[in-house]
Amino acid sequence: MNQKLPNGLKMRNSEPSDHQKIINVLKEWWGGRDLTWMLPKLFLIHFNNTSFVIEKRDELIAFLIGFLSPARPKEGYIHFAGVHPDYRGIGIGGLLYNRFFKICKENGRDTIRACTSPVNKGSIEFHKKIGFNVLKGNAEIGGIQVTLDYNKPNDPKVLF
Amino acid sequence: MNQKLPNGLKMRNSEPSDHQKIINVLKEWWGGRDLTWMLPKLFLIHFNNTSFVIEKRDELIAFLIGFLSPARPKEGYIHFAGVHPDYRGIGIGGLLYNRFFKICKENGRDTIRACTSPVNKGSIEFHKKIGFNVLKGNAEIGGIQVTLDYNKPNDPKVLF
Repeated sequence: MNQKLPNGLKMRNSEPSDHQKIINVLKEWWGGRDLTWMLPKLFLIHFNNTSFVIEKRDELIAFLIGFLSPARPKEGYIHFAGVHPDYRGIGIGGLLYNRFFKICKENGRDTIRACTSPVNKGSIEFHKKIGFNVLKGNAEIGGIQVTLDYNKPNDPKVLF
Repeated sequence: MNQKLPNGLKMRNSEPSDHQKIINVLKEWWGGRDLTWMLPKLFLIHFNNTSFVIEKRDELIAFLIGFLSPARPKEGYIHFAGVHPDYRGIGIGGLLYNRFFKICKENGRDTIRACTSPVNKGSIEFHKKIGFNVLKGNAEIGGIQVTLDYNKPNDPKVLF
């Protein structure tokens, strides 16, 4: 997979010390939204076998935090992924997702789930483009099926 | 394990529909602290094989959300657990933890980790009593070793 990355970028498994690096860029990468609560440190401790970062030297360029569902033996779940705003649209997110898809396939996981916010149009487009289907929810926001109050009250989510 | 539960209480594996039940009681059980962010729905979808609830008929009495670390093959991790305030001090939390310990043992996990807030004295005492050791952190709050800025800035945690 690495050979397809633009020059100077490297992909590796995530490590606990990446937690701070990711937290540091979250707000900027998500256009001011503070999603720190989405990523308690445990995700960078216990899922590093299926999670990846892309770096340019020491600078974080992209990350994907995913895991093989322990309770659902046919499923993989992508919890959180992001790409540096200056590096979007050149396939870097796709490389991360493909790496995760490959692990899922090797482990007999034929369903991969993900979840995003209806406000995040870029994320919805990305997931559709890469082959995800939007699951039927219980409401519609901006023409997209959503599930209301997903993680908490007033928290609609687009499920894939 | 069930036979040790007080009359009328039953333990079972958690299910996705328990998410709402747990969210509904969190604030009350945690003395007003709103820890909803700690429990996105994914924990009630993907870790039900190692997570449990105790009920009295349909009423939630206690829960434990844990998983076997995919990245650390010798570790189990208890993410979140709580007992209804009216049912504390009668060993219910211990039964949940023992159930999880048993699964860890059966799966070759000899290290079990957990994490709590220094403000939660009851939780710290419970973990010590049940056999956890407080890990050395990088600071001390109220005589307890803590790791500062654990999940985010100003978020000291007691690690076990």
